[in-house]
Amino acid sequence: MLNTKSIFHTLIALSAILVLGSCEQRDTKTVVQGDAASMAYVAPGEYDEFYCFMSGGYSGQVTVYGLPSGRLFKEIPVFSQYPENGYGYSEETKPMFNTSYGMVPWDDSHHIELSQTDGEFDGRWLFVNGNNTPRIARIDLTTFETVEILEIPDVAGLHCAPFITENSEYLVSGTRFSVPIPQQDVPIDSYKENFVGLINYVKLDQETGEMSLDFQIEMPGYNYDLARNGKGKSHGWSFLTTYNSEQAHTLLEVNASQKDKDLLAIINWKKAAEYMEAGKFTERTTSYYHNTVDHSTGIASSEEMKTTRILNPKDCPDMVYFIPVPKSPHGCDVNPTGEYIVGNGKLSADMTVYSFDKLMKAIENKDFTGDIDGIPVINYESGVHGILKKPGLGPLHTEFDGKGFAYTTFFISSEVVKWNVEKLEIVDRQSTFYSPGHLVIPGGETKKPYGKYLVAMNKITKDRFLPTGPELCHSAQLFDISGDKMKLILDFPTKAEPHYAQAIPASKIQPNSVKYFKIEDNKHPYAALGEAKARVEREGKDVHVYMTAIRSHLAPDNIEGIKMGDKVYFHLTNLEQDWDVPHGFAVQGANNAELLVMPGQTRTLLWEPFKPGVFAFYCTDFCSALHQEMSGYVRVSPADSDVKLMWGLNNENKDEETLREMMK
Amino acid sequence: MLNTKSIFHTLIALSAILVLGSCEQRDTKTVVQGDAASMAYVAPGEYDEFYCFMSGGYSGQVTVYGLPSGRLFKEIPVFSQYPENGYGYSEETKPMFNTSYGMVPWDDSHHIELSQTDGEFDGRWLFVNGNNTPRIARIDLTTFETVEILEIPDVAGLHCAPFITENSEYLVSGTRFSVPIPQQDVPIDSYKENFVGLINYVKLDQETGEMSLDFQIEMPGYNYDLARNGKGKSHGWSFLTTYNSEQAHTLLEVNASQKDKDLLAIINWKKAAEYMEAGKFTERTTSYYHNTVDHSTGIASSEEMKTTRILNPKDCPDMVYFIPVPKSPHGCDVNPTGEYIVGNGKLSADMTVYSFDKLMKAIENKDFTGDIDGIPVINYESGVHGILKKPGLGPLHTEFDGKGFAYTTFFISSEVVKWNVEKLEIVDRQSTFYSPGHLVIPGGETKKPYGKYLVAMNKITKDRFLPTGPELCHSAQLFDISGDKMKLILDFPTKAEPHYAQAIPASKIQPNSVKYFKIEDNKHPYAALGEAKARVEREGKDVHVYMTAIRSHLAPDNIEGIKMGDKVYFHLTNLEQDWDVPHGFAVQGANNAELLVMPGQTRTLLWEPFKPGVFAFYCTDFCSALHQEMSGYVRVSPADSDVKLMWGLNNENKDEETLREMMK
Repeated sequence: MLNTKSIFHTLIALSAILVLGSCEQRDTKTVVQGDAASMAYVAPGEYDEFYCFMSGGYSGQVTVYGLPSGRLFKEIPVFSQYPENGYGYSEETKPMFNTSYGMVPWDDSHHIELSQTDGEFDGRWLFVNGNNTPRIARIDLTTFETVEILEIPDVAGLHCAPFITENSEYLVSGTRFSVPIPQQDVPIDSYKENFVGLINYVKLDQETGEMSLDFQIEMPGYNYDLARNGKGKSHGWSFLTTYNSEQAHTLLEVNASQKDKDLLAIINWKKAAEYMEAGKFTERTTSYYHNTVDHSTGIASSEEMKTTRILNPKDCPDMVYFIPVPKSPHGCDVNPTGEYIVGNGKLSADMTVYSFDKLMKAIENKDFTGDIDGIPVINYESGVHGILKKPGLGPLHTEFDGKGFAYTTFFISSEVVKWNVEKLEIVDRQSTFYSPGHLVIPGGETKKPYGKYLVAMNKITKDRFLPTGPELCHSAQLFDISGDKMKLILDFPTKAEPHYAQAIPASKIQPNSVKYFKIEDNKHPYAALGEAKARVEREGKDVHVYMTAIRSHLAPDNIEGIKMGDKVYFHLTNLEQDWDVPHGFAVQGANNAELLVMPGQTRTLLWEPFKPGVFAFYCTDFCSALHQEMSGYVRVSPADSDVKLMWGLNNENKDEETLREMMK
Repeated sequence: MLNTKSIFHTLIALSAILVLGSCEQRDTKTVVQGDAASMAYVAPGEYDEFYCFMSGGYSGQVTVYGLPSGRLFKEIPVFSQYPENGYGYSEETKPMFNTSYGMVPWDDSHHIELSQTDGEFDGRWLFVNGNNTPRIARIDLTTFETVEILEIPDVAGLHCAPFITENSEYLVSGTRFSVPIPQQDVPIDSYKENFVGLINYVKLDQETGEMSLDFQIEMPGYNYDLARNGKGKSHGWSFLTTYNSEQAHTLLEVNASQKDKDLLAIINWKKAAEYMEAGKFTERTTSYYHNTVDHSTGIASSEEMKTTRILNPKDCPDMVYFIPVPKSPHGCDVNPTGEYIVGNGKLSADMTVYSFDKLMKAIENKDFTGDIDGIPVINYESGVHGILKKPGLGPLHTEFDGKGFAYTTFFISSEVVKWNVEKLEIVDRQSTFYSPGHLVIPGGETKKPYGKYLVAMNKITKDRFLPTGPELCHSAQLFDISGDKMKLILDFPTKAEPHYAQAIPASKIQPNSVKYFKIEDNKHPYAALGEAKARVEREGKDVHVYMTAIRSHLAPDNIEGIKMGDKVYFHLTNLEQDWDVPHGFAVQGANNAELLVMPGQTRTLLWEPFKPGVFAFYCTDFCSALHQEMSGYVRVSPADSDVKLMWGLNNENKDEETLREMMK
């Protein structure tokens, strides 16, 4: 009985067989144009032209690639623990994972959003969403570090996030899974009665980029999937696709695919902001966390927020509209002029292109077919610029080249299609290997796309690379789009599952990249700002080791007087003041990770001794020719031992009093 | 007073300035040969020629690259938690981190060692060491999964590991930091009196590859750094470099660099095995963990081992020898014929090449200069084939091309030098950007190197790639070595810090790579081997969800009857039986990570509800066009609620009794 028949499963499986079958017959070499090798090649000592920031999907992180080389320069830890540099293990970074659910050390990062000024990337900040436990993070693009994580309350599966407005005023997001609000113990099959959707507007501080949840709009209990904000003429509006307008709560594969059309939500956020000003909101008690890194100490701290402000469309006319959208849509993309909005119905044979002018006219004329919970539904025909007929199977996402063309990925038919947005004409199609989700063109969602390259992010790799057992990498395919036809240049593997990426010219990031932290700006309370300050202090059961690292020794490097039951905090300050001289720190048997400490920075590892004895610690980053010598010992005595606190470096260990006298 | 003057710090800093200064003046383009782009390029649809396995260093993992493309295909989690696929978070994999120190979810992986048959790579297993909390791991090269971790007792910093013998009989390793044995609370400055070194021999099961600690040899308290085993004529012998033969315990940078020569340990392990047979060992009580994955369930379990067998050179004559080696050595490498052993003294201006025949003759003639703790010290001159004079600054590691040439990395002078081993003549040198640690040539440490490429693993990247803030990637540089002169082809970034790598022809791995796990072989006790078996069972406060995944739904997808205080175990079985169709699983607010489940596999996530309400779960890997629909809800009720256990999929939720009746 539980063996549900699924027409869609069968359908998709058949499609997959057909697609993959045909792929095998394609001669991939004919796809590659003559000089592809040199087009993708970046010679030793030369630089890539673009940074490409990709979401990590189920890694929870963000990855940084170069284009056109496809080389992975960095994985930036965001939502997940990262043993490699101690993120989420060090005392400074642990608070980044605080949420109203407790400590959540993983998430599913989906959509990259670079900050914009006047509709163009400005290279200041990068935002990315956590899909599972709803959060939005901000990365500082001068340091490439995550500096802020904001939880979004009362939503589930924050897939539809974080989409920015053209002057970085707001990030809009929508709940993917509607839930009871406030959370309550109700039967799941009371979905239609009790489950509510929310669309969230996070305000950005124009100077610092800091996020604050400004307001949430109460919406019908659908699944909000993807969104874009308007630009130029449509600035001030948001467009969000929904699926599951059927409001099913089980076997969505079938039950959320019943209706021929779902709905596109259209929000006048400037109007919403006016309603906020006018006090039209209701304040509701809730709980969510805002985690921020203090710039001067590098320490993250959490603030629990306890209220949220809700706007209800019933009380706020002319703020929210719906219009039908092709069945089970994914992408919702706005062209550079802001006039056209593309709705990709992944179970529809056609793609609908809306006209912003027509939508405005329909709203002005109240050309509605009815309303849903007080939200007017615009007459479909009145809002449509036109329909791209039978472009492919399973359209997912569209970007633009700034020359009037759109590029759409087709998951089922495994291809990218180039088409003229105004004329609704297909001008080129190229196979991908295999099913692509999103794609990215540098600046391809802004008012001024840079064009030149297109990267398709493919979900199924199978036989594209040397096999690595059952778990394979996902893949990206780089196309040159400078000519009339797209040219496949390169396959490159990606880390985890990039759901979306944005690419920006190197010149917008490179000049501002911080090389090291200035030691004089280090205000960490446990920093030892000079080797003479290296010391050990006991506060009851807590022992604080103020340790310094400089090529090629740690100070102190002999520590005695630690007792069983103590908590030892190793605070390592990297005294180097030069580029690319990190030091690491690891201590034997830590139930923890390592520290990787950048020049000028202080990081703290908690170590709880497990047995009496003498244990080794060392620098984990090969920092100099004498790196192997950069090590030390810590002695652990029984709890009732009378061994005194002592530390030393290149001298016989001395007791605390003598050492303090010497330090004066 | 603590501000210790360090002559070496000054020296190294000066060298670094000189080197980097000169680097900036080099025209890198002249280094690149005409067709470098096409030499490094692997066209879409084509395969790389070699797998290159790199250690992750402070990531604790192993990475898999293709050569010549330099593309990263996979990061295999080994010693560290890996949120990306739930390694170290899932119930099946948590036991992999058990040690005598408790759960240690991080390590510093250093040296890759592929299994060998007759001195050639056989493509069966990959071994890698954990440097911090001494461990050795084994990866199965059919699945690319870590299947075993063995702790090595009573050593610290297992850097000198795991070096294999030519028929994979043994892995030899040595302690980097000597410690009191057994561990005891003694003053650190009693080092010379109390601290002991151990060299460990791990036996490999010839059929399964499973590791067992056979014996340990008690050695003087030096720092054992790197090693190789003999091959061909020298099969049966191990060669290990030491540093800190001064036995310093503080400021090793200075105090362990006093003597002009350190020592090379030479061990007759066949003789040692004979002594073991003859019962010449002493058994000592200790504690260490052996963690293994059961092949049929995929579940890791831990066994605590309580004794170890020690051989003491004093009791076992003709088993261990020393010979002086250039100051502060790092690499210790044996050429393909097994006749020459290269000792790289990183603070020495020259490199010493030992002759195995001469060493044997010296031993036969008892040509010793004395002994250390009963270990004879061979007369340096008698064991030396010759000296390579002033080859560069800071020699670290050497590999071979099978044509009579050796290639050595020089950390301080940032270069690779090619030299004739027999004639001790330098034939080529090429700059690296910048300081290289190890290098790898495919098969370059075996009896039959494949040659063709050389990869230098560089420690300082600085300006080689687009900057990513203070934390930069490390870099690899690929050289073509098929001609007389090395040609630099490509710079590619690497993940974390590869300390060593091994490369093997694709043909030795690719044909045996497993595509998916057969569902009929799945013996996991909580597997639901078919959707009809999907169910929920309560055992007191433990709730077991036997869940299945197949495109595009999870079963059950509505679950009720969970109470506050319960521990919910989601056991997800991926029912797919095709290549590259993983499913993932995440549940809102888990203080944990996700599950990434390969076809045919079962993985378990523990979820402890945090508040009453209805929470979402979903598939985290974009598996099909209807992946977004692959989701469900779990309802949590207060502890004293009378909500009954219910679950469902595409039918109204029914109570447990009815559902069990239906399942019959």
